[in-house]
Amino acid sequence: MIRTGRRPGHQNTREAILAAARSAFAKRGFDRASIRQIAAKAEVDPALVHHYFGSKDKLFVASMIPFDPDTALPQLYAEGRENAGERAVRLFLRVWDSPAGNTAAALMRSGMTHDLSARLVKEFLTRQILHRAAKLLDLDPDEAPLRTSLAASQMMGLAMARYIIPLEPLASADPEILVAMIAPTIQRYLTGPLEPLLPTT
Amino acid sequence: MIRTGRRPGHQNTREAILAAARSAFAKRGFDRASIRQIAAKAEVDPALVHHYFGSKDKLFVASMIPFDPDTALPQLYAEGRENAGERAVRLFLRVWDSPAGNTAAALMRSGMTHDLSARLVKEFLTRQILHRAAKLLDLDPDEAPLRTSLAASQMMGLAMARYIIPLEPLASADPEILVAMIAPTIQRYLTGPLEPLLPTT
Repeated sequence: MIRTGRRPGHQNTREAILAAARSAFAKRGFDRASIRQIAAKAEVDPALVHHYFGSKDKLFVASMIPFDPDTALPQLYAEGRENAGERAVRLFLRVWDSPAGNTAAALMRSGMTHDLSARLVKEFLTRQILHRAAKLLDLDPDEAPLRTSLAASQMMGLAMARYIIPLEPLASADPEILVAMIAPTIQRYLTGPLEPLLPTT
Repeated sequence: MIRTGRRPGHQNTREAILAAARSAFAKRGFDRASIRQIAAKAEVDPALVHHYFGSKDKLFVASMIPFDPDTALPQLYAEGRENAGERAVRLFLRVWDSPAGNTAAALMRSGMTHDLSARLVKEFLTRQILHRAAKLLDLDPDEAPLRTSLAASQMMGLAMARYIIPLEPLASADPEILVAMIAPTIQRYLTGPLEPLLPTT
């Protein structure tokens, strides 16, 4: 399907595919949604969907996690380690509090099996977020996996408490209150003292 | 069903019912498991199951959360606020790392719908854990809901990262490393400075 008069940039195409995917997964569920339908809805070639997202699994995860790690993470950590926790929590809340985030949370609550979602979330989280964040923040490679998985545990718990369960008053708390409370946690996990904890070899 | 020669105490009866419930939910799923079958397996009267747990919903949650808040929480906070975070994280890891915890995690991953589990977890967490912990720790009633829901967010994220996803190296990390890293987070959420964050009324 060719649309003349529009030359969408990377960001627009990606967003159009994600919006179509969210709608398709929400309407049909994971199994019955197809890349072909999603491409048609987004008015792009199915090959482009594969180019951007690789597979239906990966497209599903990307549509659940409503920001583009390719562009967001380098911005997030451009200023280095200082206040990395604060910037991470603020970005997290901004994307998840947005309409796309609401749709994503609704999708996560919907009736797909835990096994599939757990496996997909794990892959996405590890490869797309944690490995990259560790590199961008120049964390010690020996410590980075524990540090980033601790940070991920607080972020996943925040998502559970604010969007999935949801647990009040955290669910409707002002984002800046949550940033003030949770940013020091993330910062400590990423850059705080750790050495005495690790077994000396 | 009457068993002579045994007068099980509260704790034994409760544990027998929970073990039977875990087995029944795992084997038959939530919808097809029945209180009557579970009571028969535990060799108690179905009325006793209702007496201890109230409903199938509540029994399901209690079987997923493998400790008894009635006895565990007062012990946990008997020494007051100091080190409450450390004791909470250590108890959490001990019960979830146990065989009962493994079964519970497997149950949580199994194919029940998110909506049901989210509602049940929310009720159990709020009424059985957070309200009680706030009272036992004598938290300021204005602050307690935010404080305890923040602590819950980190604990739920820990459960996700260690047992549900699972995310390495956090999933197989020594419990004491996790206590050392996560206890200060829980302690700060429960008893750290908060006032400047709350809107002055």
